[in-house]
Amino acid sequence: MPESSNVQPPTDPQALAEAVGEHMFKRDLASQLLGMKIESIGPGAARLSMRVRPDMLNGHRICHGGFIFTLADSCFAFACNSRNHSTVAAACMIDFLAPAEEGDLLIAQAQEQSLAGRSGVYDIAVSHADGRTIALFRGKSRRIAGEVLGNAPQTLA
Amino acid sequence: MPESSNVQPPTDPQALAEAVGEHMFKRDLASQLLGMKIESIGPGAARLSMRVRPDMLNGHRICHGGFIFTLADSCFAFACNSRNHSTVAAACMIDFLAPAEEGDLLIAQAQEQSLAGRSGVYDIAVSHADGRTIALFRGKSRRIAGEVLGNAPQTLA
Amino acid sequence: MPESSNVQPPTDPQALAEAVGEHMFKRDLASQLLGMKIESIGPGAARLSMRVRPDMLNGHRICHGGFIFTLADSCFAFACNSRNHSTVAAACMIDFLAPAEEGDLLIAQAQEQSLAGRSGVYDIAVSHADGRTIALFRGKSRRIAGEVLGNAPQTLA
Amino acid sequence: MPESSNVQPPTDPQALAEAVGEHMFKRDLASQLLGMKIESIGPGAARLSMRVRPDMLNGHRICHGGFIFTLADSCFAFACNSRNHSTVAAACMIDFLAPAEEGDLLIAQAQEQSLAGRSGVYDIAVSHADGRTIALFRGKSRRIAGEVLGNAPQTLA
Repeated sequence: MPESSNVQPPTDPQALAEAVGEHMFKRDLASQLLGMKIESIGPGAARLSMRVRPDMLNGHRICHGGFIFTLADSCFAFACNSRNHSTVAAACMIDFLAPAEEGDLLIAQAQEQSLAGRSGVYDIAVSHADGRTIALFRGKSRRIAGEVLGNAPQTLA
Repeated sequence: MPESSNVQPPTDPQALAEAVGEHMFKRDLASQLLGMKIESIGPGAARLSMRVRPDMLNGHRICHGGFIFTLADSCFAFACNSRNHSTVAAACMIDFLAPAEEGDLLIAQAQEQSLAGRSGVYDIAVSHADGRTIALFRGKSRRIAGEVLGNAPQTLA
Repeated sequence: MPESSNVQPPTDPQALAEAVGEHMFKRDLASQLLGMKIESIGPGAARLSMRVRPDMLNGHRICHGGFIFTLADSCFAFACNSRNHSTVAAACMIDFLAPAEEGDLLIAQAQEQSLAGRSGVYDIAVSHADGRTIALFRGKSRRIAGEVLGNAPQTLA
Repeated sequence: MPESSNVQPPTDPQALAEAVGEHMFKRDLASQLLGMKIESIGPGAARLSMRVRPDMLNGHRICHGGFIFTLADSCFAFACNSRNHSTVAAACMIDFLAPAEEGDLLIAQAQEQSLAGRSGVYDIAVSHADGRTIALFRGKSRRIAGEVLGNAPQTLA
């Protein structure tokens, strides 16, 4: 169950997206564990980076596909929650195009393709810093009850 | 590029799967980072477990979907490499059915659905320890050059 | 919008699945256009057949993948509506493993993998009559308002 | 097995895409069966239309999702063969966003997202004539041996 803060959310869509992203990221220990950074965020969009560390390699000594997916999935989460409606991933699909190696800086860029009712579709491209795409991710989102910011439940002090 | 060892691989398919799994897991720092354990392994099959830690939670305070994916993806990797042919993920798809919370013990079970030429399809179900399924993953594998065990290239001392 | 009949639906799950399937198939001109036949049906399951005709071939002179998909999608529809709750496809994924040629008899078999709330996941395997699998399909269903049988709206005479 | 013609293919990429498309479409009885039309074609791109006929409706009296998929899949085929290398679909994924009804004119537009070695990824959006998107399709292509045009095998008279 998502908790919410009692901060009053901004009304400007860009400021709202930034405030939601900052709030989510502080609580998102998973994205922090992998050293992700939010490069930019906006309504329906987000851009994250992650550097491939030695402890992110798999048995083939390339970056574990799960961490490339996790970067894309976090980027998806920031994009689909950017309008402050609590939203979760229902299904995701990823095509791995090229491997990533230790030390590589990966960039994920999310774009909203569709948003109708409670369902959305988002495309996230994961690239090397030089622009070569290494994975294409498509996520289907489902809005759930609640807001990320400003809908302070009693259980929060 | 996958490196290989110069260990002579067993000929019995079950013993081979176990030896390959043990070898891969030792080198798979990513799966170790998330605290995964191989519960069992066999030709075309694998069973892994992972306990959801506090640093695996996302901004909604549930287990980051990327780590559920990563567990399934590791399970997929152990299953599709179990015949000792170096094999990587080409594409994966996951449906998230229910959330996982801090402290939950998750079990991933992989099953080979198809293997023809260099391409395979594997289904991985991720469940709670009590049997409730929380995610269904389907992975498409692509065999690459080389073996996991016993095909020692010159570059290895 | 799905219309419904004013037939009183059976209470036995197997008889209900058969009655729903018969009712749906009569109205399903698309499945009839492709010459599909229901081989069997049950709660959460269905088995359909289709013979590849000359007018189902694509520019490579093999069966158009869209028709293999359509066979699987019909099989999915009969399985996910078999409990008489009106249900539609939200998303589908197909892996093409081998081609089908003119004259081939194709069999699709659906199996329910998950059903929770309004969402379900179904796996459909498409095979040659001799058992070789040619495609693996996974469909995500979403229950909508209404029943297939027995919920007669005023607009029906 | 794809046959080829002994026509000498154009060298200009746009003229080549058009010649390949015309040649494929003439032989593609499946796309003709559904009344599709090529609206435009180019290197890595294609635009097709299809009008929903009464015999394309399913048991819910909306256009069978299989035919929406087939339109997208044909569009994918014209785009991924447009450089004259024989190419087939390996896997496809579709999200259904809104239904299509009898009489609707549907437009599919394909865009190449990635092409590396023998593998490509293509996105196809299916829309109503007024621009509302009803389905998002992603296809993974695999180049096989042979050319569509100009590589006349002996078996052809």
